[in-house]
Amino acid sequence: MDSFTLVIFGITSNLAQKYMIPALYDMEEKGMLAIDTNIVGIARRQMANEDLHKYIGQVLNMENIHHRHAIKEEVFNRLCDRFEYLSGEIEDQTTYDNLKKELKNKNIIFYLATYPELYSYIFEHLQKNNLSKSRTGWIRLMIEKPIGHDLPSAKALNGLLTGYFTEDQIFRLDHYLGKETLQNILTFRFANDIFEPLINKNFIDHIQITASEDFGIGKRGGYYDQVGALKDVGQNHQLQMLSFATMDAPAKFTSLSIAKEKIKIIKNLQPLPDHIVFGQYEGYQQEENVLPDSSTDTFYALKTFIKNSRFENVPIYIRAGKKLNQTATEISIVFKNPPNRLHVNFGDEPNVLIYRIQPNEGIVFKISTKLPGYETKIKPEYMQYCYRIDPHKHYIPDPYEKLLVDAMRGEHTFFNDAEAVEAQWAFIDPLAARRGKPAQYKAGSWGPKEADRLLEKDGRKWLEPSMDFCRI
Amino acid sequence: MDSFTLVIFGITSNLAQKYMIPALYDMEEKGMLAIDTNIVGIARRQMANEDLHKYIGQVLNMENIHHRHAIKEEVFNRLCDRFEYLSGEIEDQTTYDNLKKELKNKNIIFYLATYPELYSYIFEHLQKNNLSKSRTGWIRLMIEKPIGHDLPSAKALNGLLTGYFTEDQIFRLDHYLGKETLQNILTFRFANDIFEPLINKNFIDHIQITASEDFGIGKRGGYYDQVGALKDVGQNHQLQMLSFATMDAPAKFTSLSIAKEKIKIIKNLQPLPDHIVFGQYEGYQQEENVLPDSSTDTFYALKTFIKNSRFENVPIYIRAGKKLNQTATEISIVFKNPPNRLHVNFGDEPNVLIYRIQPNEGIVFKISTKLPGYETKIKPEYMQYCYRIDPHKHYIPDPYEKLLVDAMRGEHTFFNDAEAVEAQWAFIDPLAARRGKPAQYKAGSWGPKEADRLLEKDGRKWLEPSMDFCRI
Repeated sequence: MDSFTLVIFGITSNLAQKYMIPALYDMEEKGMLAIDTNIVGIARRQMANEDLHKYIGQVLNMENIHHRHAIKEEVFNRLCDRFEYLSGEIEDQTTYDNLKKELKNKNIIFYLATYPELYSYIFEHLQKNNLSKSRTGWIRLMIEKPIGHDLPSAKALNGLLTGYFTEDQIFRLDHYLGKETLQNILTFRFANDIFEPLINKNFIDHIQITASEDFGIGKRGGYYDQVGALKDVGQNHQLQMLSFATMDAPAKFTSLSIAKEKIKIIKNLQPLPDHIVFGQYEGYQQEENVLPDSSTDTFYALKTFIKNSRFENVPIYIRAGKKLNQTATEISIVFKNPPNRLHVNFGDEPNVLIYRIQPNEGIVFKISTKLPGYETKIKPEYMQYCYRIDPHKHYIPDPYEKLLVDAMRGEHTFFNDAEAVEAQWAFIDPLAARRGKPAQYKAGSWGPKEADRLLEKDGRKWLEPSMDFCRI
Repeated sequence: MDSFTLVIFGITSNLAQKYMIPALYDMEEKGMLAIDTNIVGIARRQMANEDLHKYIGQVLNMENIHHRHAIKEEVFNRLCDRFEYLSGEIEDQTTYDNLKKELKNKNIIFYLATYPELYSYIFEHLQKNNLSKSRTGWIRLMIEKPIGHDLPSAKALNGLLTGYFTEDQIFRLDHYLGKETLQNILTFRFANDIFEPLINKNFIDHIQITASEDFGIGKRGGYYDQVGALKDVGQNHQLQMLSFATMDAPAKFTSLSIAKEKIKIIKNLQPLPDHIVFGQYEGYQQEENVLPDSSTDTFYALKTFIKNSRFENVPIYIRAGKKLNQTATEISIVFKNPPNRLHVNFGDEPNVLIYRIQPNEGIVFKISTKLPGYETKIKPEYMQYCYRIDPHKHYIPDPYEKLLVDAMRGEHTFFNDAEAVEAQWAFIDPLAARRGKPAQYKAGSWGPKEADRLLEKDGRKWLEPSMDFCRI
């Protein structure tokens, strides 16, 4: 792989601690960083280089980092040797003068772990210092979600970005898209011809997407209370999941072709403001840094349709929430029941194709089979393709690390482009406008009963994520 | 379940020892025999009742019985209490006079573990003694395969049978049809609507059926040398397997409707005498009770087509043999490769739906998936529904026992009827007529190279049964 200089704006930030530094350690351990690759960490605070090394050591030993494991002294030292600390204000030219001295490679990744409000200062300075384009190497920019908080702000941010960078330089990072199970959906669908013929209105009754967590907002009140469930995970993770599961086959297996097909799905999504439910778990208003009369949604459930001929009249139900009954993320494609079941005792359990993103990662078919024994008794079972059954068989890289590797290679497939982000907001905005006083729900439940009614009206019900498959 | 009297003609036979007596023990252990059920064992030799009990004890402790396990004294005693031994000649009226005294139930199963040559004497005596029909209970007849050795002899035997019994009284037993994996094919196909839409010429490239054994004929030379592989397993087991995997949905899930659809498949099979290969393993002629210049087939491989519109031009390749590379019985439905694989690096491994009858029993899809990691590398994997992963989860009854229970209930689904048996011979006879000097093959190989050429001519190859799924 090319050697490059990684510039981290905000090396002392939560994002750098939780994701970036551990990912760099893993890459160092695997020898994935070219010998001349160096890393510049920028932050305000005064800190000697030794202090930076100490800080990195602390970060790698923190309890709450994303990907924690035993630290090898020798790997740690090699990583620290790449690091240079640079203390400075983002608005200050001196910072960039100092930065230029550290740019030891013609290839550069700028990683912004700062507030979006600071982006424009950084971009302006990078451009002024001839650091936004390169004629001899490549310059890339990695930024984190959220991209805006509604369509106008997303457009403004994308406008700002493309004022300084071309779209192929920009990597909008959503660590969800780095997950193997999500990435395998495309391979599973298009490398095999036995499932794709069934993924259409002729065979599918409906689709469900669930992203549930059995924990609350923790210490993230300050951020979360301004965002809520719909915008925190619905706008990005879940719409991306839906588009992977329902997009048409790309003309080529390139990021551009794939992005084109995904965007078609999101643009065809029909917002139904009369079919969305917002909920808030009991006790949310007492959480740290939450307004005492907050009406922020910690749960939402919606119904939508994809307006194309393939999925005509196939309802799609999406829900996400905190303090729910269990933690699980999955897409369930629920098939129609075969007509010939009616005259035999084959039961009415539908076939379901489940993409389980987490936990018990896998792709499984829920089928009906004959209970072994003397009678033709039917029982639901699973045909399973599991990721983690044999931990020695597959090494599953950390999603964040995978995306960092992709950015190093200029591979955009699992990043969001401007058009997709804006299409997502265009769908979400009219729904978010309906937020009023959310329905209360008990911790440990599956959200407010209004969410159940959303499906019951259609003669359907939410599927409880099963833990009966792909157990380790 | 009804109580009944089971009459075993040939209680000292190999069949009674290997299958029937162990199955009766298992049923006794599970309390599946009604309290008044009694068993009469008939054979020539003089033997007191205590000797019979001793004999049963010996049988249950034999090494080569089909289903062996620790014998519980108390179950054994209960079973022995049901047994009455009856010494006599089959051609002798005294035998039937004595038998009538032991018929303590109005329901009777006659189980014939004798040479087919003796059937007519038995039937004649049963009829003469008013034991072939009953007005108050039921009378059933269980006989073992083979039914004849060609179409004329099968017709003669079926003619003999129906001269004394109605078709619904006759249970032609093939213990293969009692296997769970085979029985589950129908449920799997018709209780789920996600596979059936793919089982046709639009999606299927070809079908393979393999029944391989890694051992030779052992001490069965006297029987086997007169029969050969094609007639021993091709005519019955494998054609039955094919018909389960390819039959249309039955109008109802009854044995009659199912038999009707299965027979349609077998009647539509096209014998291709120019596309069959016979083989014999090296050293076969030196086996015990084999003619020194024997040309009996210990291996065969054939190609056929089902002449209906669903499977038009879908070749079906069937092979079976002894002393081959491994022991495995499976049906593989090989799908066409999706066209969109061509422009991506998705490889050319086809999708395969595998019904694994034994070992590693299960129903699995061979799929292509993304190798976890940084690149889109494709690797073959399996979506698995396994029978024996958790031995505590499913109790899988012994096939023989299952069929005995079915016969007790009058359930015909997994027995062969006259029409099916004759259709099978009608397909086999023109192929068997082509037997000449078989091609020699090495023990531990996959048969003679002529068998490979059968597929290579069509641009295909035999699939090696994988042991990579459903391992315990």
